[in-house]
Amino acid sequence: MTLSRRFTAEFVGTAFLLAAVVGSGIMGDRLSGGNVAIALLANSIATGAALVALILTFGPISGAHFNPAVTLADAALGGTTWQAVPAYLVAQLAGAVLGVFSAHLMFGLEFVQVSQHARTGGAQVFSEFVAAFGLLSVIWGCVRKRPDAVPWAVGLYITGAYWFTASTSFANPAVTMARALTDTFAGIRPADVPAFVAAQLVGAGAATAFFRWLFPTLQRSAADVVVPHERAS
Amino acid sequence: MTLSRRFTAEFVGTAFLLAAVVGSGIMGDRLSGGNVAIALLANSIATGAALVALILTFGPISGAHFNPAVTLADAALGGTTWQAVPAYLVAQLAGAVLGVFSAHLMFGLEFVQVSQHARTGGAQVFSEFVAAFGLLSVIWGCVRKRPDAVPWAVGLYITGAYWFTASTSFANPAVTMARALTDTFAGIRPADVPAFVAAQLVGAGAATAFFRWLFPTLQRSAADVVVPHERAS
Amino acid sequence: MTLSRRFTAEFVGTAFLLAAVVGSGIMGDRLSGGNVAIALLANSIATGAALVALILTFGPISGAHFNPAVTLADAALGGTTWQAVPAYLVAQLAGAVLGVFSAHLMFGLEFVQVSQHARTGGAQVFSEFVAAFGLLSVIWGCVRKRPDAVPWAVGLYITGAYWFTASTSFANPAVTMARALTDTFAGIRPADVPAFVAAQLVGAGAATAFFRWLFPTLQRSAADVVVPHERAS
Amino acid sequence: MTLSRRFTAEFVGTAFLLAAVVGSGIMGDRLSGGNVAIALLANSIATGAALVALILTFGPISGAHFNPAVTLADAALGGTTWQAVPAYLVAQLAGAVLGVFSAHLMFGLEFVQVSQHARTGGAQVFSEFVAAFGLLSVIWGCVRKRPDAVPWAVGLYITGAYWFTASTSFANPAVTMARALTDTFAGIRPADVPAFVAAQLVGAGAATAFFRWLFPTLQRSAADVVVPHERAS
Repeated sequence: MTLSRRFTAEFVGTAFLLAAVVGSGIMGDRLSGGNVAIALLANSIATGAALVALILTFGPISGAHFNPAVTLADAALGGTTWQAVPAYLVAQLAGAVLGVFSAHLMFGLEFVQVSQHARTGGAQVFSEFVAAFGLLSVIWGCVRKRPDAVPWAVGLYITGAYWFTASTSFANPAVTMARALTDTFAGIRPADVPAFVAAQLVGAGAATAFFRWLFPTLQRSAADVVVPHERAS
Repeated sequence: MTLSRRFTAEFVGTAFLLAAVVGSGIMGDRLSGGNVAIALLANSIATGAALVALILTFGPISGAHFNPAVTLADAALGGTTWQAVPAYLVAQLAGAVLGVFSAHLMFGLEFVQVSQHARTGGAQVFSEFVAAFGLLSVIWGCVRKRPDAVPWAVGLYITGAYWFTASTSFANPAVTMARALTDTFAGIRPADVPAFVAAQLVGAGAATAFFRWLFPTLQRSAADVVVPHERAS
Repeated sequence: MTLSRRFTAEFVGTAFLLAAVVGSGIMGDRLSGGNVAIALLANSIATGAALVALILTFGPISGAHFNPAVTLADAALGGTTWQAVPAYLVAQLAGAVLGVFSAHLMFGLEFVQVSQHARTGGAQVFSEFVAAFGLLSVIWGCVRKRPDAVPWAVGLYITGAYWFTASTSFANPAVTMARALTDTFAGIRPADVPAFVAAQLVGAGAATAFFRWLFPTLQRSAADVVVPHERAS
Repeated sequence: MTLSRRFTAEFVGTAFLLAAVVGSGIMGDRLSGGNVAIALLANSIATGAALVALILTFGPISGAHFNPAVTLADAALGGTTWQAVPAYLVAQLAGAVLGVFSAHLMFGLEFVQVSQHARTGGAQVFSEFVAAFGLLSVIWGCVRKRPDAVPWAVGLYITGAYWFTASTSFANPAVTMARALTDTFAGIRPADVPAFVAAQLVGAGAATAFFRWLFPTLQRSAADVVVPHERAS
């Protein structure tokens, strides 16, 4: 699997993920008559469902990270090579932005927007730490014994975490940055992005260190299982 | 598996799919007290759930396409033979119409209706391009490495895409044409059908070309995996 | 697996199924503030989820029919022996009644009730024909190639069919009779039971005949796969 | 797998479970505008989804009990050794409390609270008996033939049981005790805890005895399958 194919898979997959997050937020918001719980229920179910499908679809090509925190953690465990990391991060960020623009186009909104949705304060930031810690825990916990379950576990975790974290679980730096570019239900004020991203990276790093201790053989597993195509790149 | 059995499976399966789409739309609309988000939540969950069950049920017989765009794309990749294509398309269209009539009969409505539900404009048409591009991507992405996951991935994708596309993701020319025959929640004005169908075919074609590049060995996989019974027809 | 164990599994499993159907109906009705769509969404999701878990739990013991229409159709295909059929039907009916009583006890209602919920007319009866035809189609379609998928396909089908049939898909004579004994959300007037049961049996029979034609080898498969324990009884 | 790793897995997993239960309850309650059914729908879907992900994640390490009733029943069947039981119970209780505190922190609430939510009376207590009987039935029913299905069956059962038991199915003594420490949607008055816990233990014990009779070979299966790492501790 060449790097250009993997780059493209990350790019298109992340674009679809953001279209799903932002688009379902717009649709839920428009139709729910002001009941935010119904909008969030639609948003969380649609995102989780799309995420399972997208990971199943693009996983065999790029590993379906769609998330800089996952790519960095995977590289730290010897999975993704460090040479491939910049391409992954660029693909994820560019794809995320394209996804937001596509959602705007599908719903007849202005292409470029800036969010005014404040998501700030210690409770929100701690929520993002928990959200990312949980996401990476789910990935590393499933990879060793049941790699086939990863797409399902990740999708279900995200659907749940939308509700049990106060921040609705962004848990993904590329997603967070791109959501600053939409002034709709799923948006986040640009000023609030850095703290979210920092908390996500700390949470992802903590979970990765934790699972290296829990599973002493995790490092080799990651390289073999998550990105089996890596060797050929 | 003879062509008559495959034809019948496509016919009955597509009829159930349309009964599910139209019937759950009527039920959701009737019971939701005007909250369209609740109606769409029921509609999207019921359709996705039924779709998984129907693909598992009829997949071993006909491949469970239920969708002319899938049949044409599969034929383009060497799966379904071109001789079988007309029978598939007829079965899908006739089954779709039967499904709509069955939904009307179940809910005590007039058999034959013409929709007045306008679904028009560039945003809607672009949504259908995205919806069909995504659907075919999911199918081709899963077929090669995890064919057993196709029913689940397709059902989950559709549940999600109901929400993240502005058109509620028809993504299927037979479904689109048949839904012009119901003046209920799921309907579409006949005048709006051609643009939807065109966008779906372009989206499906684009995704198929894209995945031929992503997976150079896809063509053979499709013939072997999606319709393993094909050889015997 | 002795017949006493199989009888007990059908009895307890059907009791849990009815407790799930009736109990979640009561809870949904109490909490939804009069929005019937929200009550039905809870009812359909809870029933489908419980059904998957119950079939996985009791399937290895009794086949997890929980449904006279399934038992009779399975016997017709040479799966369940005709000698075992009466015990299955008694277990299903007695379990269903126990489940309704348990739901009443859990929700602090009178044990014995008689439903006044009218479910009558041709549209309702046709809905039950469709519901049972679909249910048996899903079972026979999955059994041959993917028996492991049966619990999931059945649960998902029922969640969907709650919405796309006008009768909310009883699809089960034991369930129908027992639901006449509850004057809550899930009830059915005793006078309306016979037509429902007749439609279910006709639908189940039609689907079984249809799949015998679709899958000429189905008869042997049923005996081997659905009730593998049968030989030892 | 050393006991310290297993202890830690139970601790962190149970913490996430409680964060999911309590956090999604708070979020649902805040956003649903007083419609309790919508709040409970979010609460039940988020809990079930998170539970599947958490069992998949921590199952290979500790068996992912997260529940003293499960640990005690597993020990009674010869799975978990009795020497390991105290560590499991301590980890579950401490993790549960941490999870509740984390939910409070994420939602900007006071750390330590005492619930005033009355859950009392025979109907509630009987509901907990049923809830725990069902949960242990699902576990023992799946373990023997389809251990891979346990995470899914448990998550789906809990989502369903939220609705079909009048108590919303706590079914877990550690969860029950910890939920006395939150005065939010998911709370329970400390005075009501003992009867809940007693009913749960009786229900779990009854189901375990029942399945020992249903599956005469269950005892050995439990030791081999649920906690395969046990031997190495």
